[in-house]
Amino acid sequence: MVHDSTSDISPLLEANRKWAEECIAKDPTYFSKLAGSQAPEFLYIGCSDSRVAPAAIFNMVPGEVFVQRNVGNLVNVKDLNCMSCLEYTIDHLKIKHILVTGHYNCGACKAGLLWHPSTAGVTNLWISDVRDVRDKNAAAFEGLTADEAWDKMVELNVEAQVFNVCASPIVQAAWARGQPLTVHGLVYSPGTGRVKELIKPIKGTDDPSYSLSAKLKQHCSFSDCLKA
Amino acid sequence: MVHDSTSDISPLLEANRKWAEECIAKDPTYFSKLAGSQAPEFLYIGCSDSRVAPAAIFNMVPGEVFVQRNVGNLVNVKDLNCMSCLEYTIDHLKIKHILVTGHYNCGACKAGLLWHPSTAGVTNLWISDVRDVRDKNAAAFEGLTADEAWDKMVELNVEAQVFNVCASPIVQAAWARGQPLTVHGLVYSPGTGRVKELIKPIKGTDDPSYSLSAKLKQHCSFSDCLKA
Amino acid sequence: MVHDSTSDISPLLEANRKWAEECIAKDPTYFSKLAGSQAPEFLYIGCSDSRVAPAAIFNMVPGEVFVQRNVGNLVNVKDLNCMSCLEYTIDHLKIKHILVTGHYNCGACKAGLLWHPSTAGVTNLWISDVRDVRDKNAAAFEGLTADEAWDKMVELNVEAQVFNVCASPIVQAAWARGQPLTVHGLVYSPGTGRVKELIKPIKGTDDPSYSLSAKLKQHCSFSDCLKA
Amino acid sequence: MVHDSTSDISPLLEANRKWAEECIAKDPTYFSKLAGSQAPEFLYIGCSDSRVAPAAIFNMVPGEVFVQRNVGNLVNVKDLNCMSCLEYTIDHLKIKHILVTGHYNCGACKAGLLWHPSTAGVTNLWISDVRDVRDKNAAAFEGLTADEAWDKMVELNVEAQVFNVCASPIVQAAWARGQPLTVHGLVYSPGTGRVKELIKPIKGTDDPSYSLSAKLKQHCSFSDCLKA
Repeated sequence: MVHDSTSDISPLLEANRKWAEECIAKDPTYFSKLAGSQAPEFLYIGCSDSRVAPAAIFNMVPGEVFVQRNVGNLVNVKDLNCMSCLEYTIDHLKIKHILVTGHYNCGACKAGLLWHPSTAGVTNLWISDVRDVRDKNAAAFEGLTADEAWDKMVELNVEAQVFNVCASPIVQAAWARGQPLTVHGLVYSPGTGRVKELIKPIKGTDDPSYSLSAKLKQHCSFSDCLKA
Repeated sequence: MVHDSTSDISPLLEANRKWAEECIAKDPTYFSKLAGSQAPEFLYIGCSDSRVAPAAIFNMVPGEVFVQRNVGNLVNVKDLNCMSCLEYTIDHLKIKHILVTGHYNCGACKAGLLWHPSTAGVTNLWISDVRDVRDKNAAAFEGLTADEAWDKMVELNVEAQVFNVCASPIVQAAWARGQPLTVHGLVYSPGTGRVKELIKPIKGTDDPSYSLSAKLKQHCSFSDCLKA
Repeated sequence: MVHDSTSDISPLLEANRKWAEECIAKDPTYFSKLAGSQAPEFLYIGCSDSRVAPAAIFNMVPGEVFVQRNVGNLVNVKDLNCMSCLEYTIDHLKIKHILVTGHYNCGACKAGLLWHPSTAGVTNLWISDVRDVRDKNAAAFEGLTADEAWDKMVELNVEAQVFNVCASPIVQAAWARGQPLTVHGLVYSPGTGRVKELIKPIKGTDDPSYSLSAKLKQHCSFSDCLKA
Repeated sequence: MVHDSTSDISPLLEANRKWAEECIAKDPTYFSKLAGSQAPEFLYIGCSDSRVAPAAIFNMVPGEVFVQRNVGNLVNVKDLNCMSCLEYTIDHLKIKHILVTGHYNCGACKAGLLWHPSTAGVTNLWISDVRDVRDKNAAAFEGLTADEAWDKMVELNVEAQVFNVCASPIVQAAWARGQPLTVHGLVYSPGTGRVKELIKPIKGTDDPSYSLSAKLKQHCSFSDCLKA
């Protein structure tokens, strides 16, 4: 490889070499036990933002968490990128927990809050789901300052994506066949390094009633409300 | 939060608290300097597999690498999930390097190699791009054992995704306006922790000729080959 | 071509030959004037249902209407299939009218109303947008019989898709630059052959206020409601 | 409805009224027999182009053909818009024939042939599949004039989309369970009104060997070529 100041990543490869050596020095089986296959208990769905590294923030070692990361930690049943993560981890790896994790200071949430819908480019199309969450919750933003609105957008977005996970065919089918699976809604603060729970974990469609579960229950049994 | 043996993630939250405290103990500004915004130099596009944590393997701290992770580290110009990562990092964050990183023992590559196309479910749809890479390179698999074919699939898949990144409108437009941007094709070994370069970095459409660049050049100037 | 009772379409090809001859008998230039290019004034977005043929129901000749047809006449800004129809007709062909046309007895709307979200298959993923429209308008279904609910679902779905067209970046950008473009919401009755208008045509974001326009206006100027 | 020279579609509604009356005058049951449900034998997958109206060109009446129309008559297993048409017609309506129909003078094929990959907008993303077909068949374009290349692009595109239909999980599963289903590749000439068959109909994976079937067979049994 030709070394070159603008295109060379040899410092990265060197850092990788040192890291691998240190891991093996601490535990000679650190990597070799992972070569065959993976058996994580967690699926993390989070933002692509460089400040939020899932394995690091939960102090997890390789093999512990399967990861979907996209701009704005969005979950949409028509997005095969994210849905294949759900299906593969639930149907094949039998993970136990899904960690839907947003973060404060999220650029995607700011874009969803403020960008005009006419904005050009694919990012504007992608974050249109954030805009939908915003519109559905317009009342929640009344009287807020710009910073308060941003935090609110981040939190409402996590709730909406938790709902999308829970309402997805894959999770619905898992719950219907009795597979243990809990969905969590979390938010990370890049300024403190801390994660907090935004909602109570959801273990199924019959989970004790609060706003999100009630909405989910209605979603799953809509036809019952039609006149016989 | 009700503690409960199957749905509780308080050990994760506790691990997060300890991690954040340790980071701050080592450097009191560790998080506070990151609160405002991000300015990473790298976009990492890698697999969702639990054994491959991008920040860890390159020993990077929060803020250094923007991350897209999906099943099989696939890049498709019609996938807004991945394309919004490309656009946001290139047009807004002005990253310098894109690290397309596959890994050996990749379940998505095995599925693309072996699953029958009639397989039900969204993962089978998602990994159809791997199957296309396989079909295009059928000759490369002749005479290989199953394990050799799996490694070959992983490597050919990285090359194909590097091509997809380079051929995308976003990267093409960045190069056309002279923005410095290098695309790398890497592969990680879960069994050793080591990353290696599969192809020479690509810095533009006029990069010195080898197979991938030649293919890219033809892709970008096809109409020149039509009779005047 | 081998003729064969189950796979042969020679009756179709024969019907095509007769049709083409009849068209030319009536007007020798019927086809030749169309060979070069198209210049339609209308984009029709309608259901794939076999009972609803757009050119026929408006008695239009070839060249008059550009057509997007999918299951349930759905419009989603993240669906490149439909968005490329919008972009191509608005930016390249400069069409004047978009006819979002639903129909009663629509199987997609029935599915969106009644299918359980856990249903397997891609159609269930695709019609999840109908389910979202249903959930947003839950109150409108209270006390309705199953047939009334089906009709209501069809109508609410048309309104929602008209909104999606109007809120799309492509239409927003066209209106912003003053390009004349009117969006219509129609419904067809397979049992009578008649089309009716469900909403007043929308010619821009400042259209006289009724529910859909008000919602659109708020969508486009949300940030104005945040506290300064 | 306010009548207005730029936004009014009352001439369309009037044309619809006359058409419906004429249909009923010729056959009083023309519409009423269709009100309940549809039972078409054909799925037509064609271009959105205004010059190609599927029911008209085959002289079909309402109820005979289920229709997917998009820019360039493209079929991609990751496109839920088109895949839901395949699934709904094959699994629910049990159609017998799929008519993949391209047309000469196709703007999408011209764009796939000539647009630079850096072109902005969603249409350029959408037609990237045409560009892939072009690249795979680069040798077929050598020495052709621009018009010959355009015709060739149209034909190769139909073949590629027929392959995509045949290789899709939905069609593969239908054939595997013995459901009768034939896939056709056709091309329409806007300048003459005539349809012609480009390939022999495909009735299954074991269809007599020619280029497309051989490719399909390899696609479905790739793992057989790996060394035991």
